[in-house]
Amino acid sequence: MEEARCDTGADVDAVFAALADPTRRAVIGRLAQEPLSASALAGELPVSRQAVAKHLAALDRAGLVSARREGRETRYTLTPAPLAEAMRWMDDVGAEWDARLAKLAERR
Amino acid sequence: MEEARCDTGADVDAVFAALADPTRRAVIGRLAQEPLSASALAGELPVSRQAVAKHLAALDRAGLVSARREGRETRYTLTPAPLAEAMRWMDDVGAEWDARLAKLAERR
Repeated sequence: MEEARCDTGADVDAVFAALADPTRRAVIGRLAQEPLSASALAGELPVSRQAVAKHLAALDRAGLVSARREGRETRYTLTPAPLAEAMRWMDDVGAEWDARLAKLAERR
Repeated sequence: MEEARCDTGADVDAVFAALADPTRRAVIGRLAQEPLSASALAGELPVSRQAVAKHLAALDRAGLVSARREGRETRYTLTPAPLAEAMRWMDDVGAEWDARLAKLAERR
């Protein structure tokens, strides 16, 4: 994934908060495959068009999607940079944990 | 990191919600290195002992830490399985995104 440049805690807060909802995760997973309109997303997910619009607005505030008008339709695209920043945090924790396990194994 | 066995959405919701706070992320990062007491954590972080206790309770509810009584002290250890599950979700999204970029590159 594309690397994020800035590393402000506030962004990571918003990303993780956005990911704490199963519908928003489903939207992100789907938009990772291709840009889609809110109607197309609502047609695939077990939630209303209105609920999808609300979740897209939340994802937009967290910087995770961007909207682009194409004719009569607005299509949403994943913005992967903030997601990459959150992943990097998780990778760092994973590396710390692995280092700890390696140290414990050495002591045995 | 250790792999999680179960894959229920509710767990992932709780994990991401728990990660949406910078103090909780700092606690997780520190506990990934070694088990610590709430007092030791409070000594290192710019928050009160009470705030640390509250965050540890939230992390415990999300299944991210486990408490163990050692003499007079309670030490907290990271429980990496739920974190690994959340990471796996992020890796899957990253793989979808990479596949999309590869397809777009092919078309050019």
